[in-house]
Amino acid sequence: MSTDTAALLEQARSSARTLAKSSHAARQEALQGILDALGEEKAAVLSANAEDAAAASRAGISEALLDRLILNESRFEGMLRALREVISLPDPLSEIRKMGTRPNGLEVFRRRVPLGVLAIVYEARPNVTIEAASLALKSGNAIVLRGGREASRSNAALVRAAQNGLQRAGLPRECIQRVEDDSRERVKELLQAVGYVDLVIPRGGPELMKMVDDWARVPVIRHGQGITHLFVDSSADAQMAEEIVFNSKVQRPGVCNALETLILHEEWTASDAWPRLALRLSRDGKAELRVDSRSAASLEAQGIPFRSASESDYSTEFLSLVLAVRTVPSLDQALAHIAEYGTRHTAGIVTQDERNAERFLQEVDASCVLWNASTRFNDGGELGLGSEMGISTSKLHAYGPMGLRELTTEKFVVYGAGQVRG
Amino acid sequence: MSTDTAALLEQARSSARTLAKSSHAARQEALQGILDALGEEKAAVLSANAEDAAAASRAGISEALLDRLILNESRFEGMLRALREVISLPDPLSEIRKMGTRPNGLEVFRRRVPLGVLAIVYEARPNVTIEAASLALKSGNAIVLRGGREASRSNAALVRAAQNGLQRAGLPRECIQRVEDDSRERVKELLQAVGYVDLVIPRGGPELMKMVDDWARVPVIRHGQGITHLFVDSSADAQMAEEIVFNSKVQRPGVCNALETLILHEEWTASDAWPRLALRLSRDGKAELRVDSRSAASLEAQGIPFRSASESDYSTEFLSLVLAVRTVPSLDQALAHIAEYGTRHTAGIVTQDERNAERFLQEVDASCVLWNASTRFNDGGELGLGSEMGISTSKLHAYGPMGLRELTTEKFVVYGAGQVRG
Repeated sequence: MSTDTAALLEQARSSARTLAKSSHAARQEALQGILDALGEEKAAVLSANAEDAAAASRAGISEALLDRLILNESRFEGMLRALREVISLPDPLSEIRKMGTRPNGLEVFRRRVPLGVLAIVYEARPNVTIEAASLALKSGNAIVLRGGREASRSNAALVRAAQNGLQRAGLPRECIQRVEDDSRERVKELLQAVGYVDLVIPRGGPELMKMVDDWARVPVIRHGQGITHLFVDSSADAQMAEEIVFNSKVQRPGVCNALETLILHEEWTASDAWPRLALRLSRDGKAELRVDSRSAASLEAQGIPFRSASESDYSTEFLSLVLAVRTVPSLDQALAHIAEYGTRHTAGIVTQDERNAERFLQEVDASCVLWNASTRFNDGGELGLGSEMGISTSKLHAYGPMGLRELTTEKFVVYGAGQVRG
Repeated sequence: MSTDTAALLEQARSSARTLAKSSHAARQEALQGILDALGEEKAAVLSANAEDAAAASRAGISEALLDRLILNESRFEGMLRALREVISLPDPLSEIRKMGTRPNGLEVFRRRVPLGVLAIVYEARPNVTIEAASLALKSGNAIVLRGGREASRSNAALVRAAQNGLQRAGLPRECIQRVEDDSRERVKELLQAVGYVDLVIPRGGPELMKMVDDWARVPVIRHGQGITHLFVDSSADAQMAEEIVFNSKVQRPGVCNALETLILHEEWTASDAWPRLALRLSRDGKAELRVDSRSAASLEAQGIPFRSASESDYSTEFLSLVLAVRTVPSLDQALAHIAEYGTRHTAGIVTQDERNAERFLQEVDASCVLWNASTRFNDGGELGLGSEMGISTSKLHAYGPMGLRELTTEKFVVYGAGQVRG
C-alpha cells in the first residue's frame, strides 16, 4: 500500500473509533455543520464544478455523463434538501434488542453499531459525494470517497466544506476523506485494505465490477446492473398494464430500475391491448421494440414499428429507450425466463389474479418484487428508507436499496453476574 | 470449472429454487426424514467413521484432531439431539415485516428469504456435516459440503443418509451435496463460483484463510481466529474475577472463545487476588503464564511459576493452556490494547463499576462483549440462537454466532394498485 493511502486509512480508522463513541447529538451537530458550511461555500463549489464541466466538455465526454456531472443552482439546492432529509431521519444506532434471558441468568442483547470505515467508488456525480458522506456520518461510520476523475475539483470543494462542518462540531475532519489520486492503483488499494476498510461499495459499470472481481479482498456490496422484468399476466387490467409498462420503461430509461424486458402472457398478446400499448411506447415514448415472433404478429398487422429480438437482447441492460419483448404461455414460463435472465434487481407483475401475484412475489429471486406498480419504485426514497447508498444485488447483508440501517451491524452484548460455563 | 463441479452446482442451484418454493411443513418433514435415516444407518456411519479414524491414526494426525474426528455412540446421539433441536426451532422464513404504506398508497414489506446455495469448507468434524446441512435445510438453502479429507468416509455415509431422508420427504436429494474430491482445486472452484454459490463459510486455520484471501470471488463469512480478551478492572470482585478468568482460560482452551490475553488493572495486580488467581491457573489449571514485568513482581515474590511475555504473545491465538497477561493503569489503556490486538471476536470485562462496564460494552469492537461473565459464552447455543453455523468476525451480514436467521436475507415486496412514478 502506498504511504499516502496508508496514512489516509489510518486516519479513517482512528476517526471511526471516535465516531463509534460519539453521541447522536454530536453527529447531528456535525451534519448541521456540513449543511451550514455548504451554504457558505456554495460559490466556491459551483465555480469548481464549472471548471470540471468545462474540462469534461473539452475532453468530449457524453451528454449523459456531462449532465450527471453538472451542479447548477437548483441541483445544489436539491443536494442541501437531501442532506436536510438525512438530518431528519431517526438515529440508526439507537436500537438495542433484548434477545432473552438465558436459564443461567445471562441477559443477552444485540446492539446496533457502525460498520467502521466505508469506502465508496463511484461515478462523476458530485451530489453522491454529499449523499454518501452524510449517510456514513449519520450511521457513525468514517468514509473514504473515490469519485470519478471528471468531478475531482467539485469533490475537492465539497469535501473541504464537509470537513469544515465536522471541525465546527468537534469531530475529526478525517471522518470524511477523499482519495485525490485518481489512478486505478488507489482503487485496488481500497479493495485490498483488509483491517482498514470494513465495506467497499462500488457503483459503476462492468469495468469497475471486473476490477472488483479481480481485486476485492475486503467485503463488498455491489450496486450491480439491473435487467428489470415486468410480466403482464392474462388477467391484467389493460389500462393499468399500459400505464405501468409505459412508466417503467420511459420515465427515466437510463437507470437501473427501468424496465428492460417485457414478458407478455400469450392471451394478453393476442388481445387489442398489446398493439395499443406498443403504439404508445413507440410513438409517445420513442421506444424501440425488439419483439419475439409471437408478439410481432399484431404489430405487423397494424403497421407498428418493431425489430426482431435476438437472444442477446434478453440479457442486455439497455439503459436507453430499447425494450425487449417476449411472449410466454404461462406464469411458469415467465418465472423461468426471469430466473434465467434476471440479475436479482427488480421484477414486477401486473395481474388481477391474487394467486398468480403471490406466487410471483414469492418465487422471483430479486431484491424488490412488485405487484401492480411501476418497477421504478425500487428506490430507497420511494420505499421509505429516506435516502439510499445504492441498491444491492448481493444477497448478503443488504438486498435492495441500502439505507442507514444497512450501514450498520449488530454486536452481542451480554450482562452477567459471574456466570461461568459448565 | 471442472465438469463435475459444474454439474454439482447446477443441481444445487436447481434444488435451491425448489427449496425456495417449499413449505415449512415440507422442510420439517425432510429434517425428520434425515433424523430417521440417520437412526437407521447408524451402524454404517459408525463403521465408516472407524475406518476414517484408523486411517488418520496410521497417518499420525494429532490427538486433538483425532478426537474431533471420532464419532462414538454418545457423540452420534449428541448429533441426533442437535438435529432434533434444529427441528424444534421456529421457521426463520415466516417473517414478513410491514415497512409502511407510502403516501401514494404503495404497501411496502420485507420478506425473509433463503440465501440460495451455501457452501461450507470445514475441518474433519463429522458432526458439523449434519449440523450445517440441517441448518441450511431449515432455512431453505441448498448446501454444498466440503469437509476435511480425514473424515471423508464418515461424511459420505452421513450425506447418503441425509439424502435418503430428503428423498422420503419428496425434496431433491441434491439439496445436500458433498464435494468428494478433496483437492484444493475444488475449494478454489467453490470460492469462485459466481452465480452459483451465494455464500461460502470457511472454517479453519490460517492456511484456509489465506486461500480465501487469494481466491474468493463469491461472498464469504469468515469464522476467523479469536484473540479473546478479558479485562479485570480495579473494582472487580476478586472471587468473581477468579472464577471467570479460570473458566474462560481453562474450561476448553482449544476453542475460539477461550481466553488468550488477560488484562489487569494495576490496582488489581497489586492486590493479593492476583497471586491467588495466578496460583490457581498455574497449579489447578496447568496453565503457563506469560506476564509483563508489572504483573511478574508478586508472582516472583511468592514463587509462582511464570515466563516473561514477548510482544508476539499478545497477538497469538494460543488455543492451548498458555495465557498472556498485561497490566494497564486504566480502562482507557485496556481499551487501546484490545483495539490494537483484538480480532473482533470476544472481549469481556469484570468490574463492579457500571460506568466502566458500559463504556467497555460500547467501545470494544467485537462480535460479543460481556460484563461479568465467562468469554466462553460467545456461542450460538449459549446465547440462545439454538445452534450455530460458525462465529462471524466479519461485520457484514452477521457479526458473532450465526444462527438460522443469518442464513437468510430479506427482499422488498411491494403491493400496488397501478401506481406509477411521477
